[in-house]
Amino acid sequence: ADAAAGKSKAQMCAVCHGLDGIGKNPDVPNLAGESPIYIAKQLHAFKSGQRQHEQMSIIAQSLSDDDIANLAAWYASLKVTVEMPN
Amino acid sequence: ADAAAGKSKAQMCAVCHGLDGIGKNPDVPNLAGESPIYIAKQLHAFKSGQRQHEQMSIIAQSLSDDDIANLAAWYASLKVTVEMPN
Repeated sequence: ADAAAGKSKAQMCAVCHGLDGIGKNPDVPNLAGESPIYIAKQLHAFKSGQRQHEQMSIIAQSLSDDDIANLAAWYASLKVTVEMPN
Repeated sequence: ADAAAGKSKAQMCAVCHGLDGIGKNPDVPNLAGESPIYIAKQLHAFKSGQRQHEQMSIIAQSLSDDDIANLAAWYASLKVTVEMPN
């Protein structure tokens, strides 16, 4: 998979998912540092209809298998660190 | 919602989702710093069957509305920072 191609493809996702992969509104999941296998599985599920969402079901139709692999690689490359509340 | 109650409830989730909310295997999403509205929406979707998953569909049946709100509050309280790849 090609994370750089994923980065440019992700420009269209950024409006909701953020350039840094952190959701821009409360209905939107973070994608930063997510497992590429999980991301690809969800995009294929939206594409096949196995998982449904108003916007994502439509957007996923426009994604090729390569797009999906590249987007997954891109978001997985965003390094996430967690700070536990004390 | 009670994040502390969510933290103790989340002990059972940690085996897959990690104590720090980072997925322990590639099929499992990260939950750390996720929007509480998104998490609650997904848990209710697994509970109602609107979203399906082998384990989560079963686990969600055991969760009350309070459990769901508390789990969402707990995972949202885990602070996430993203490091962009250069």
